[in-house]
Amino acid sequence: MKFTIRNAEKKDLPQVLELIQELATFEKEPDAVEVTVEDLEKAGFGPDAFYTCFVAETNNKIEGMALVYFRFSTWKGKTVHLEDLVVRQEMRGTGMGSALYKKVIAYSLEQGVKRAEWVVLDWNTPAVEFYERSGANVLRDWNTVQMDETAMRKFVNS
Amino acid sequence: MKFTIRNAEKKDLPQVLELIQELATFEKEPDAVEVTVEDLEKAGFGPDAFYTCFVAETNNKIEGMALVYFRFSTWKGKTVHLEDLVVRQEMRGTGMGSALYKKVIAYSLEQGVKRAEWVVLDWNTPAVEFYERSGANVLRDWNTVQMDETAMRKFVNS
Repeated sequence: MKFTIRNAEKKDLPQVLELIQELATFEKEPDAVEVTVEDLEKAGFGPDAFYTCFVAETNNKIEGMALVYFRFSTWKGKTVHLEDLVVRQEMRGTGMGSALYKKVIAYSLEQGVKRAEWVVLDWNTPAVEFYERSGANVLRDWNTVQMDETAMRKFVNS
Repeated sequence: MKFTIRNAEKKDLPQVLELIQELATFEKEPDAVEVTVEDLEKAGFGPDAFYTCFVAETNNKIEGMALVYFRFSTWKGKTVHLEDLVVRQEMRGTGMGSALYKKVIAYSLEQGVKRAEWVVLDWNTPAVEFYERSGANVLRDWNTVQMDETAMRKFVNS
């Protein structure tokens, strides 16, 4: 399988959004994606670009992507956060996911951060095992907490 | 208990760092803090400020702080991430923690994001219950994954 890993361009974003949707469906949240191609373009391009997206291309088609941005740890300083890493279903097992993952880790080192981090669903055993084999630590005692817009309004007005 | 919640100034950062250290010790990671006052100043002030820090002040002393920055969800767009919320041990139960928390949620709404998020240790039952009572969701099926610099170098060279 021959493919190229490169930085995403604006023209790739419709296919990137398809991959985001494919991942959300796999994660049992098929209706969760509210982001549009315009949102992706606005947040990822231009002088104030917030994220960096890498894509895996073969036969002029985007078959995988990894999207990262910086965070700030009050313990370690600047870190890289991997928000999504997706490979289209038909392309799994081709080495594309590993290549994107390696690109993200190499990018993190280039950026001089002390840590890269991301989240994984606890039932996604192949992913958990892959990350642990690669030398990452899976922390099982931290829970993610989220408050959505409706709950935030209710809380602030309470 | 009278206190003021306001944005941190550079002069507050040594006390902010003390609070970061206090939280790390509470979280059973007393040696984890590598960040310096200079790192905090560089990352949080000036035109490229990455984070926003709120402090709670009483009698000219900083007794609590909350530190936030933006993230980008491929489902919801821009979100606010609460990295740390700390109140000095002696000041717990005074309403300072709640006031800082409310400030963070109000700030998130002002910034127009669809979600605020953070992490909590699963054994920190008072915090978990506080967040749930406030309307936040504690997601127990997502695990945090981290790769430190040494592991990143080893992986990229493998």
